[in-house]
Amino acid sequence: MSDRYASFANSGPGKALVKRLGLPDPPRLRRYRPGDPLVTGPVVLDAAPGGRLREPVAKLLTAAGVDVRDPGTTAQPGGRTDAALVYDATGITDSTGLRRLYDFFHPHARALKGSGRVIVFGTPPELCATPREATAQRALEGLTRSIGKEFGRGSTAQLVYVAPGAETAVESTVRFLLSGRSAYVSGQVVRIGTGGAGTVPADWERPLDGKVALVTGAARGIGAAIARVLARDGAHVVALDVPAAGDALADVANSIGGTALQLDLTVPDAPARLADHLAARHGRVDVVVHNAGITRDKTLGRMDAARWDAVLDVNLSSQERINDVLLERDLLPEGGRLIGVASIAGIAGNRGQTNYATSKAGVIGLVESMAPVLAERGVTVNAVAPGFIETKMTAKMPLALREAGRRMNSMAQGGLPVDVAETIAWYASPGSGGVTGNVVRVCGQSLLGA
Amino acid sequence: MSDRYASFANSGPGKALVKRLGLPDPPRLRRYRPGDPLVTGPVVLDAAPGGRLREPVAKLLTAAGVDVRDPGTTAQPGGRTDAALVYDATGITDSTGLRRLYDFFHPHARALKGSGRVIVFGTPPELCATPREATAQRALEGLTRSIGKEFGRGSTAQLVYVAPGAETAVESTVRFLLSGRSAYVSGQVVRIGTGGAGTVPADWERPLDGKVALVTGAARGIGAAIARVLARDGAHVVALDVPAAGDALADVANSIGGTALQLDLTVPDAPARLADHLAARHGRVDVVVHNAGITRDKTLGRMDAARWDAVLDVNLSSQERINDVLLERDLLPEGGRLIGVASIAGIAGNRGQTNYATSKAGVIGLVESMAPVLAERGVTVNAVAPGFIETKMTAKMPLALREAGRRMNSMAQGGLPVDVAETIAWYASPGSGGVTGNVVRVCGQSLLGA
Repeated sequence: MSDRYASFANSGPGKALVKRLGLPDPPRLRRYRPGDPLVTGPVVLDAAPGGRLREPVAKLLTAAGVDVRDPGTTAQPGGRTDAALVYDATGITDSTGLRRLYDFFHPHARALKGSGRVIVFGTPPELCATPREATAQRALEGLTRSIGKEFGRGSTAQLVYVAPGAETAVESTVRFLLSGRSAYVSGQVVRIGTGGAGTVPADWERPLDGKVALVTGAARGIGAAIARVLARDGAHVVALDVPAAGDALADVANSIGGTALQLDLTVPDAPARLADHLAARHGRVDVVVHNAGITRDKTLGRMDAARWDAVLDVNLSSQERINDVLLERDLLPEGGRLIGVASIAGIAGNRGQTNYATSKAGVIGLVESMAPVLAERGVTVNAVAPGFIETKMTAKMPLALREAGRRMNSMAQGGLPVDVAETIAWYASPGSGGVTGNVVRVCGQSLLGA
Repeated sequence: MSDRYASFANSGPGKALVKRLGLPDPPRLRRYRPGDPLVTGPVVLDAAPGGRLREPVAKLLTAAGVDVRDPGTTAQPGGRTDAALVYDATGITDSTGLRRLYDFFHPHARALKGSGRVIVFGTPPELCATPREATAQRALEGLTRSIGKEFGRGSTAQLVYVAPGAETAVESTVRFLLSGRSAYVSGQVVRIGTGGAGTVPADWERPLDGKVALVTGAARGIGAAIARVLARDGAHVVALDVPAAGDALADVANSIGGTALQLDLTVPDAPARLADHLAARHGRVDVVVHNAGITRDKTLGRMDAARWDAVLDVNLSSQERINDVLLERDLLPEGGRLIGVASIAGIAGNRGQTNYATSKAGVIGLVESMAPVLAERGVTVNAVAPGFIETKMTAKMPLALREAGRRMNSMAQGGLPVDVAETIAWYASPGSGGVTGNVVRVCGQSLLGA
């Protein structure tokens, strides 16, 4: 579960050896601890003429105590002074205007600090007025993904498409992407729409105060990390797992002042029993994280039907049944959050995982198809797609496969369960009402997974 | 430009050594030669109850002389008898119904011949009646991509989403995907809509008879291959390149009975001059292939503005200017085809290629944003995204990078320029009127490129 090479490479003698031999050089990532400032230095902000985001973003950053600078005011020859580079490209209306991105990033490219942040704002191509504008806005993705692969040193780069009218709904996303919470998220495209805008948490350090969050598969690994992070952010967590995991589950629940709920989600009356529990104890559930998932790997020719059925039922069908009951009984109120856990395998497919990949691609389908339906209730639905995360499961992988997964990404290292959990906490935030229908990879911008 | 390892691995002594040492084992891919049958054995076809595609597909295959079989009629213990497995999943309306895919593929998984074909038909999730149906249909992508990675031996697997009402518009796509023309295309998702359905070529071996096709950057490499394949399929090709490539261009044009046109597309009057030429000589252009593209690699911090500008202008802006003039002067008639060349870098970004990746992501944006606009004229627009293709450019790559690109895909080898050209010829076919807004990777299902 630990990356010994990364620890070694960050030690004194290790650093020297890594450099000398040209070995992968995993940087130590800046990860969030309560009380941390949003960023560790000045944020350089600029916009193409006509940009919609520069003003609201400058305002929210300044209010958050961030040192916001104009371009050209921070870069020193050879000095890595900038904590983040933020560019509002929403004013670009055709491909010739893309030159402005070069003009902004070229002089600052080598001034970004370690674990630095790049955010480019654009207009969703499908909402652009002309094909020329849509083409230029779509081109931004090639730029940000390249920057993510190029800048290194633990820096991340994202493209945030903001729908016209959603300019004031970006704060939770900007905070997440600038902070150490998004340490292992890079090369992603996030869409922010107009639904649910304007619900700002009273305390950004405890955005989930007063909320009830259900986390399935919470006894260990990523699920336990999700429960801990949601509790840290203020939620009362109902930690659910199968009865066989009861002891581990109780430990997690007790450590965060939550509730342990033992339930096998695949039994026919599980949705009703779960709904009964939530209704009786809390009268509602604000955040539902469908984290429970299993693998039963075999190539299709050698896979028995039980393996197919078990994986599809746990990872997909049972989640649909639960959602339906929660919605029918009106237990997910306005401002509710439905959050799924997909997988790189669900995006790209994987050898020996036809069942798992099908179920996880289905989770993506659930997010995409439920988003417009739930928007009418003021509820969002999103998913994370973890890449290589250091868990007991990945610790058992064959060495070559494990090292390929670990190193072949922009961070040259695996992610931690907390990285997945932080991304889920961003979706869960009351400030993320405009964030729906997204599937964000938590993969350090893995080269693999196409 | 050649893959010596693949030649070696397919030789007598090479085969034995590769097997013994567990080295990558690149199969010899079945590639199309004029006169070849569509497939080299029986095609197993089945459907989930309520499927819309089974009947029209059975009909077109039978008419094409294909031996269409029911499941269970071909598989012999240990025998690799099936040339293709085709499943119509459009009848699946929720995730529990996905079991039918297991039931179909499990017994046939080990019966597929080398260079076999898997096609799954689905309904585009965005056109499904319910979220449950959309979820199940979206899940198909995880299955087909996994099959592509799992079945091996040069087999390919694709998901074809067919809009309701477009059932009779699938023949050009089915023919392309079953044939050796799609040798290096795998793990792709194709969308077929209702626009332009029903224009069937008189002769499927010469679908472009009587058509005029413009190919830019046609003097060498992928562009020359495109010109040759379009000419083979019957088109009169206007082969365009810069004056400096004049001799090579003349050779290509002469060898295919086409026209050579020397023109620098970035000069201000190039669109007008090109339009004048096409208007005067042909009165129109039926197929436009924007293949001309350049690279000027540098990391962003070290890139001069000229490199940015040149790449963006050649690869994107000049193409937009040309399209606009062709459309303004009504030179692209109903049934016209606009075809772009994107890149894996345009999808995933690439270190040292911020300019190139931005331009190629823009090409994807052009396809997506122009598709609905051009549909009103009966014109389609699509792009290919080549992965590792054996060209003079890739021959110059550093060894480790070259071998990673070559081997890390479902075919364990690089593609050939003709593979890109065949995909473009499929878009160009009069039978592909329902195929618009697609970006298909020609990458052997590369693991890289996320």
